[in-house]
Amino acid sequence: MLNIGIDLGGTNIAAGLVDEQGNIIKKLIKPTDKQRRYEAIVKTIADLCQELITYTICENKNVSSIGIGSPGVLDNSKGELVYACTFPDFNNVPIASDLRKYLDIPVFLQNDANCAALAESIAGASKDTKNSITITLGTGVGGGVIINRQVYEGFNHAAGELGHMVICIDGEECSCKRKGCWEAYASATALIGQTKRAAQNNPNSIINELVNGDLDNITAKTVFDAAKADDSAAASVVDNYIAYVAEGLINLINIFMPEIIVVSGGVSNQGEYLLVPLRQKVEQYVYGSDFLPLTRVEKASMGNDAGIVGSAMYAYACNR
Amino acid sequence: MLNIGIDLGGTNIAAGLVDEQGNIIKKLIKPTDKQRRYEAIVKTIADLCQELITYTICENKNVSSIGIGSPGVLDNSKGELVYACTFPDFNNVPIASDLRKYLDIPVFLQNDANCAALAESIAGASKDTKNSITITLGTGVGGGVIINRQVYEGFNHAAGELGHMVICIDGEECSCKRKGCWEAYASATALIGQTKRAAQNNPNSIINELVNGDLDNITAKTVFDAAKADDSAAASVVDNYIAYVAEGLINLINIFMPEIIVVSGGVSNQGEYLLVPLRQKVEQYVYGSDFLPLTRVEKASMGNDAGIVGSAMYAYACNR
Repeated sequence: MLNIGIDLGGTNIAAGLVDEQGNIIKKLIKPTDKQRRYEAIVKTIADLCQELITYTICENKNVSSIGIGSPGVLDNSKGELVYACTFPDFNNVPIASDLRKYLDIPVFLQNDANCAALAESIAGASKDTKNSITITLGTGVGGGVIINRQVYEGFNHAAGELGHMVICIDGEECSCKRKGCWEAYASATALIGQTKRAAQNNPNSIINELVNGDLDNITAKTVFDAAKADDSAAASVVDNYIAYVAEGLINLINIFMPEIIVVSGGVSNQGEYLLVPLRQKVEQYVYGSDFLPLTRVEKASMGNDAGIVGSAMYAYACNR
Repeated sequence: MLNIGIDLGGTNIAAGLVDEQGNIIKKLIKPTDKQRRYEAIVKTIADLCQELITYTICENKNVSSIGIGSPGVLDNSKGELVYACTFPDFNNVPIASDLRKYLDIPVFLQNDANCAALAESIAGASKDTKNSITITLGTGVGGGVIINRQVYEGFNHAAGELGHMVICIDGEECSCKRKGCWEAYASATALIGQTKRAAQNNPNSIINELVNGDLDNITAKTVFDAAKADDSAAASVVDNYIAYVAEGLINLINIFMPEIIVVSGGVSNQGEYLLVPLRQKVEQYVYGSDFLPLTRVEKASMGNDAGIVGSAMYAYACNR
């Protein structure tokens, strides 16, 4: 049995045929052109689904359900996308029934970070665990919580805003109206800001060389490259950044005691260079780490396919 | 059908016969004398149970199971109290099987804060909700998380250390090795410290009068009494304290989006005086509060019976 997963992003709509084990059989991508009207975007999703369905007919297979993963708050029980800042025009839109105008297949909705966490827990780094958390260190800090092998979404479908946990009262301004959120310290965006300030304050730092003197060229990778080349200003930024990531991570462990925390997003490409010191801090500071089994911290393994696989597997679970 | 709930505390052991709705039919209390050996304390628990069982026989009723709620980490699957700082001698003790030497009734174990949260969710302030959190503002800041009407305990049975969430990096020292934990700002202990400092810095504050000049007489209630009498130093302590409580509360809401957060512990006796400003901050700062239904914040209603009722209801749920 196959299910379709749709990863509705601000740049692209990725659609995939996914088997029951979470393997992608076929994948298609179209640009979102997010300035288009809602109806046009739904039509694009329908077209992608139709193309995948046609493929399965040729292969003599069936599509059982369609899952859509999107940024924002989605109410699967009502089939509505409630709110998504990526698509300001999409307020309380009945996307499931609108898609069913084109296709007679059940449609299920879930937040994209939750889909990514579910994908990791079924086919990725947290496979075979019951309770896991996947955090994304990207433009913001996103998160998805899996409890008892299911997405945990809270009573209003908006749980898992793990980046909007204050770790520093009255600290850095956050986009969410609060000050000192984890996201304001541990996102790739925050890291780029920290790197820029270090470059400005340390004109001899090789950060400046690496970006040819144009600080707008700084990416999340820049400071790691500089630190690995023994640049002391960069090493200090990296140390502080890892400490920020660790504070939020240890908070989440003390709260959830999940079997594993999976780290995804651009910054996670630093792999063990990031994970080894994170694990050391977890070992040192998690509550009860002297006598309790410890939460593992691992890199995500699903990459860009997490959204497709997670949304398809969510639909599969809902439809059973 | 009746179940016995045991609230094993550092001062007293409270035992109760509890019906299926969470009502206490009969209650007994004996001092813990916690310096005694483990075996002696188990014998006291057995005696209390036996007395309650004798009572049920006279009433022609049956006891189905026994639940024990205790501070620390309890592994119900193994029947072990893994660790409890209240009872340093109780490391990995097989309390369930040791109790069954005296009584042929199934025994189930759960952390006391989790029991309190379960009790509130069955018979108290969070009754009829699926997902709730109960926090305790007492000597420390404790917590219990109820998901899908069940205690959430994580893979190592130690989840819910909600007080050990850093809200202020490099802030106040905490007993857990970290700095800046919520507990170090929002516990009754922390509030007493904040009140003492204010009294020292403001000799004219009526805080000093209320304790007859002896700052060791300060309790968590003192500063609220002074603030209600328009003492400006006290009002400032209360405002800051409520802001600290709110930061952690909003973090938990952004993470869990529970239907309700129940506030228990000595400080919660301030009732609406505490809850009204907390709710205002929740409304203002919770992620998506502009367009999402809001988590309620209410005072606990089970009082000192929460431990008995919660442990009995936990046993009842495990035994079904």
